[in-house]
Amino acid sequence: MEHLISAEEISRERFYEIYRLSRKVKKALKEDRKKFSVLRGKCVVNLFFEPSTRTRSSFEKAGKFLSADVINITASASSLKKGESLIDTLKNLDMMHPDVIVLRHPCEGACYTVKRFINASIVNAGDGRHQHPTQALLDAVTLTEYFENLEGKKIAIIGDIVNSRVARSDAILFKTLGAEVFVYGPSPYMPRFPEAIGVKKLSSFEEVAEISDAVVLLRIQLERQNARKTFPSLREYAELYGMNKKRLSMLKKDAVVLHPGPFNRGVELNNDVVMSEKSLIFNQVETGLAVRMVVLSLLCRRKERLEEEVQ
Amino acid sequence: MEHLISAEEISRERFYEIYRLSRKVKKALKEDRKKFSVLRGKCVVNLFFEPSTRTRSSFEKAGKFLSADVINITASASSLKKGESLIDTLKNLDMMHPDVIVLRHPCEGACYTVKRFINASIVNAGDGRHQHPTQALLDAVTLTEYFENLEGKKIAIIGDIVNSRVARSDAILFKTLGAEVFVYGPSPYMPRFPEAIGVKKLSSFEEVAEISDAVVLLRIQLERQNARKTFPSLREYAELYGMNKKRLSMLKKDAVVLHPGPFNRGVELNNDVVMSEKSLIFNQVETGLAVRMVVLSLLCRRKERLEEEVQ
Amino acid sequence: MEHLISAEEISRERFYEIYRLSRKVKKALKEDRKKFSVLRGKCVVNLFFEPSTRTRSSFEKAGKFLSADVINITASASSLKKGESLIDTLKNLDMMHPDVIVLRHPCEGACYTVKRFINASIVNAGDGRHQHPTQALLDAVTLTEYFENLEGKKIAIIGDIVNSRVARSDAILFKTLGAEVFVYGPSPYMPRFPEAIGVKKLSSFEEVAEISDAVVLLRIQLERQNARKTFPSLREYAELYGMNKKRLSMLKKDAVVLHPGPFNRGVELNNDVVMSEKSLIFNQVETGLAVRMVVLSLLCRRKERLEEEVQ
Repeated sequence: MEHLISAEEISRERFYEIYRLSRKVKKALKEDRKKFSVLRGKCVVNLFFEPSTRTRSSFEKAGKFLSADVINITASASSLKKGESLIDTLKNLDMMHPDVIVLRHPCEGACYTVKRFINASIVNAGDGRHQHPTQALLDAVTLTEYFENLEGKKIAIIGDIVNSRVARSDAILFKTLGAEVFVYGPSPYMPRFPEAIGVKKLSSFEEVAEISDAVVLLRIQLERQNARKTFPSLREYAELYGMNKKRLSMLKKDAVVLHPGPFNRGVELNNDVVMSEKSLIFNQVETGLAVRMVVLSLLCRRKERLEEEVQ
Repeated sequence: MEHLISAEEISRERFYEIYRLSRKVKKALKEDRKKFSVLRGKCVVNLFFEPSTRTRSSFEKAGKFLSADVINITASASSLKKGESLIDTLKNLDMMHPDVIVLRHPCEGACYTVKRFINASIVNAGDGRHQHPTQALLDAVTLTEYFENLEGKKIAIIGDIVNSRVARSDAILFKTLGAEVFVYGPSPYMPRFPEAIGVKKLSSFEEVAEISDAVVLLRIQLERQNARKTFPSLREYAELYGMNKKRLSMLKKDAVVLHPGPFNRGVELNNDVVMSEKSLIFNQVETGLAVRMVVLSLLCRRKERLEEEVQ
Repeated sequence: MEHLISAEEISRERFYEIYRLSRKVKKALKEDRKKFSVLRGKCVVNLFFEPSTRTRSSFEKAGKFLSADVINITASASSLKKGESLIDTLKNLDMMHPDVIVLRHPCEGACYTVKRFINASIVNAGDGRHQHPTQALLDAVTLTEYFENLEGKKIAIIGDIVNSRVARSDAILFKTLGAEVFVYGPSPYMPRFPEAIGVKKLSSFEEVAEISDAVVLLRIQLERQNARKTFPSLREYAELYGMNKKRLSMLKKDAVVLHPGPFNRGVELNNDVVMSEKSLIFNQVETGLAVRMVVLSLLCRRKERLEEEVQ
C-alpha cells in the first residue's frame, strides 16, 4: 500500500489484513497500552484545508501513540491568500521529509492531483464530496466485528447521499466485502443514477426497516442547510427521516445503527438512538483510532513491527 | 483525586501534598532538568473553547515535560457550528482513550455536566465566571512559599470580583488554608452578598493597605469594558483602584502582590509594581507549570513516580 | 551564539561552521535518518504573531527531529486584544523555562526589544521588513553547496526590495561571504539609498542576466498589492520582471535561481522556471530544515552532540 486515497483501492484481502490488526490494536488500547515505538523516526503531517476536530485528532493520536513525529498544519484562509498552489505547497512540505501526509481538502480529487509530485504517502482524510477511505474502513471494521463478515448483509445509508463522501466511500467498501447497499432520504439528496455507484434507492422507511441489517445515518450539514435550504426544515427532516425510538423498534432484531459523527441530536437521530444498544456510534470512534494506527503503520512499511508490539 | 473541577475539592492535606511536590518540581526545573518519563504512555487532551495562550501552553508543557502525548483541540466557532453537543464531543474524545482532559469552556459548570459521561479525568481550566482551580493552587503555593503557611493571613482581592473565576477559586482555597479573604473594587464589580462566598468587602484602599498581607490584583477585561461600559473609563480605574508606586508604599512591609495575568500595565498595575520586589507575578507563572505537572501526575496516579524522578 | 536575530551576527567562520554541519544533517535526512536525541530535555517555543506555514513547520520539525519538546503559540488577534505587552508575554513564557523562543512579529526590531528581558535564546523568524536570518543562512548554504564558495560571485535580488526582510538579510550575509549584491525591480520597490545596505541597483534585465551568477526572486505580496496598488497590475509585473523561459535562457550558463517561497506561479516566475534545472527552489526548503536543526543545536550548546549523532 503506497497511498490511501479511495475506498476502491481496498481489496477484500487488504481489508481483512487491516481488520485483524485493528482488533489487536483495540485490545491493547482497552488494556491501557497506548505507547508503541512502531513509527519512531517517522514523520506524519496533518494538512487540513477544512476545519476538523475529530479526524485530525484521531490521526494525531494514532501517530503519537506510535511514536511518530506529528506536525499539524491548518491552512487558514490567510495563508491560502498568499497565492501558492496546492501542488507547490505539497512539494515544499515533501522536501522536509515527511513519511505520510494526511490531507483534507474541499476539492474532489485533490489527493490524485498532488500524489505524483511527492515522495511521501498520501492519506485522503476527506476531499470534498468524493472520498474518506479511513471512515469507510472504520465503519466496515465496526460492522465486521459485529457480524463476523458482511457477505450478503443489507446496509442502508440514510441522509444526504449525493453530497456525502462517507456514503460514497462506505458503499464501495461494503460492496467489496459482499454486502448489498441501499440509500434512502429526501429526494434532492438522492443520487440520480444510483446504479452508477452500485446502490439501490429505497422509497420508505418501512422498506429500510424490513431489509436492513445495518443502517448508516449521515450528518445533516446544518451550515449548508442554513445557507441554501434544500428541504423545508430540520424539524421536517427529523420527522420524516430521523431515527427515533419508534423507527428503531421497527428495525430487525439484530440490526445496528452507525453514524460518522459529529451528529445532531434531534435531527438525524435522537437521544433514544444514541443510548440504544443497537447504536455502534461511540464504538466507531474507538475503532477509527485503531484503524488509523494500522493504516499509518502499513504506509510506513512497519506492519510487522506493529503486529509484534501490540501482541 | 479523580477530577479537579473546583477549588472546593482541595482539602488542606491535599494542598500540602501538592505544595511539597511542586517545590521539588520547581527546584528540578531551575536546575534545567525538565524531561521526566512519569507520564509516558499517558495522553492529555487540551480542549479549549475560549482563547488562551498562557494556561494552554502551561498545561501543554506540563504534559510534554512528563513525556505524555499531548493533543491540543481549539474549538473555533466553525467546528461548534457543526451542531454537536458538548457532551457528545467529550464522549467522542473519550473513546480515543485520553487519561486527562483539560477543559476550558465559557459556560459555568461545563465540567460537572460532562464528567459523568466519560472515563478520563477532567481538569477545569476555567469555566465561565465559575472556577479555575489550578490558578487557585498556583496562587496558594506561591503565597505559601513566601509565608510558610496562610494561617491567619489577610488577603485582599482587588478588581472585578463578581465576574472573576480567579477570585472565586482563590477565595475558597485561601480560606481552606486558614486565611481571611477581603475584596475591594468598583461597586458594580462587588458581590452583592459577600458573606455567601465567605469574604468581606473593604471600602477604601487605606483599609486594604492596613490589613493585607497579600494583594491579588485581577485583570480588567478590556474586551468586556469596551463592549458595555461598567465604569466610566480605564483611566479612572487606574486612578482609583490601580496599584502604583504610592499605593505600594502604603502596604505592610512584608506584603506581596499577585496577578493571574495577562496584566494591563497602566490599568490594574503600573511598571513600578511589576518591577517591585513585592511582586510575585512572574514567580506565579513558574509555579503554575510545576503545579500542573503535579496535578497531571496525581490524576494519572503517578505521584510516586514523579516524586522519585525529580529527586 | 546566544541569539540569532540578524544576519549581521553571522561571521564568515560561523557561517562555514553551520554550512559544514548542515551538509551532514542533509545527508542524514536523505538517508531517512531523522530522529536524534540531541535536544532531549530542551524546549523550543514557536511564537508566531503573523501567519506562517512553512517557517513554523520547518522549525517545528527541526525541534522534533532532535527530540526537543516543541510548543506552538499562534497569537491570534483575540489574545492580543487582551492587552498584554510583548515584553510581558515573553517574560511570562520565559518563566516556563524554554531554551529557545522562535519569534515572528510584524514589528521591526521586536527581538531586540525583548531579548534583554529573558533567559531563553531568541531566533528571529521574521520581524516586519527587517530581518529573517535563517532564510539568509539557508540561501547562502544552498548557493555555497552549488558554487563551493561565494567569493567574488555576483548575486541579483529581484522584486520588492524595500519591503523585504529576505532581501535585507540575504544581502548582508552574501556580502559577508565575499559576494557582490545587486538589486532590480519596479522603482517604487527599490531602496532610495542602495549604498546604505551595500548593494547596487541595476536598471534592466539585460544587465542582471549579463553579470549574475545567481538570481534571488522575491515573492510579490499579493495581499499587499490588492490593498494599495504600488504598480499597475500583476500581469505587468510578470511581463516586465517575472522570470520566464526566455529570461532564463539569457542567464549565464551556470547561473541559478532561488526563491524564498511561497511563490506565485505566473507572477514572479512561471512553470518553466520552477521545473528548470537552474532552479534550486525546492532544494532551499530541504536545506532550511537542516540549517534550523543546526541553529537550534548551536543555541542549546549541543553542537558536538549533533555532529556525533549525524555521523
